[in-house]
Amino acid sequence: MKTVALIVAGGSGERFGGETPKQYQLVAGKPLLAWTIARFEQAASIDQIVIVAAEDFLLYVNNQVVDPFGFAKVTKIIPGGATRGESVRRGIDALPISTSYVAIHDGVRPLVKPSDVDAVVAEAQHHRAAILARPVTDTVKRAKDGLIIATLDRRHLFLAETPQVFQYDLIREAYHKAVQEGIEGTDDAVMVETLGFMVTLVASTGPNPKLTRPEDLEYIKMVLERENRG
Amino acid sequence: MKTVALIVAGGSGERFGGETPKQYQLVAGKPLLAWTIARFEQAASIDQIVIVAAEDFLLYVNNQVVDPFGFAKVTKIIPGGATRGESVRRGIDALPISTSYVAIHDGVRPLVKPSDVDAVVAEAQHHRAAILARPVTDTVKRAKDGLIIATLDRRHLFLAETPQVFQYDLIREAYHKAVQEGIEGTDDAVMVETLGFMVTLVASTGPNPKLTRPEDLEYIKMVLERENRG
Repeated sequence: MKTVALIVAGGSGERFGGETPKQYQLVAGKPLLAWTIARFEQAASIDQIVIVAAEDFLLYVNNQVVDPFGFAKVTKIIPGGATRGESVRRGIDALPISTSYVAIHDGVRPLVKPSDVDAVVAEAQHHRAAILARPVTDTVKRAKDGLIIATLDRRHLFLAETPQVFQYDLIREAYHKAVQEGIEGTDDAVMVETLGFMVTLVASTGPNPKLTRPEDLEYIKMVLERENRG
Repeated sequence: MKTVALIVAGGSGERFGGETPKQYQLVAGKPLLAWTIARFEQAASIDQIVIVAAEDFLLYVNNQVVDPFGFAKVTKIIPGGATRGESVRRGIDALPISTSYVAIHDGVRPLVKPSDVDAVVAEAQHHRAAILARPVTDTVKRAKDGLIIATLDRRHLFLAETPQVFQYDLIREAYHKAVQEGIEGTDDAVMVETLGFMVTLVASTGPNPKLTRPEDLEYIKMVLERENRG
């Protein structure tokens, strides 16, 4: 049973400002994406790693992010599409035919624990589809035109993280169907959910922020610099 | 129109581990609660500050958190109750009769921007009830027994923060009704929502985390230490 990590780093940086796309910023001495890849190198459940990057950055990823750090599991670096969904779909189609499970992960979540990766893979191997998630601790409001219309019961709410791990056939079918029907999701699990499959949740055991806002970068930097110091 | 900040610091620390309740931990040279109070000292819209603390900590708050920093707006430090809701209700009942608006704030949100406090107060003065909130950027799942049953449309979801600002009569009525009917909420706005009143949202313009988990403290510490350095 071969499990491949598909690390999605397709963005080319329009949203974050600055010239270097956020996943390539040097943080604690390495490009952020290299920190992310390292987690999957360490996760025992992962056999291979495929990286999806913007076409203009394929060489950069090879020469500056993969080669210098000797990542032994990285087998392919392939060009992404215009949206995250399109990048994931291309990545899925590029996986070896022998793939049994795919662990899709955001390139800008560099703090994920290898043991959490292993836990989600193990769960997916039982139930075909599983994602890392975190219980909601804030009060969540539903609003319309700036007015609160409901307070949700947070006991049943979870924030989706990555990795999201799927049986290969299942996620391939889900993405092909999504393309046909023009569905865009904010994560990968929703594609499988719309097929009517149950996706299970595995609780994160450590911080696993997605680098979105400047304060996320500050926090990530602090953690990685501390990790460097030992 | 007098606006009073009600800073809720009622916890006595059972949940966070360690001996010092989290709101009194020394962070960047001051008890965390002192950092929080300072934001309301700086906010032009706030006339007075009332602090709710656990009975055992009333003297401590006076001698170690308020007096050393010369907070001129703090007029009362009053004992809280067994739950957050009970502490807020006692705080509300202890406010001066001349109070027009109450800005209820978590003692463990020390990073709130004074300008955000002022913005929520201004909004409440127009609409009777307004809270600081942040758009949800994660994908939110509704789950049952560890299985995802729905992916919510996050475009309409917001995370409630504090301050939450209310016309004094309105929040007093809401809390008294809540006590009568045995309602416990995870924030204050929900009490007003259940009365059928519309509450408006004001978008946070800076990070305003609630100290809950160890990683929150790490982030808060980093920001406050940087603030100290100027």
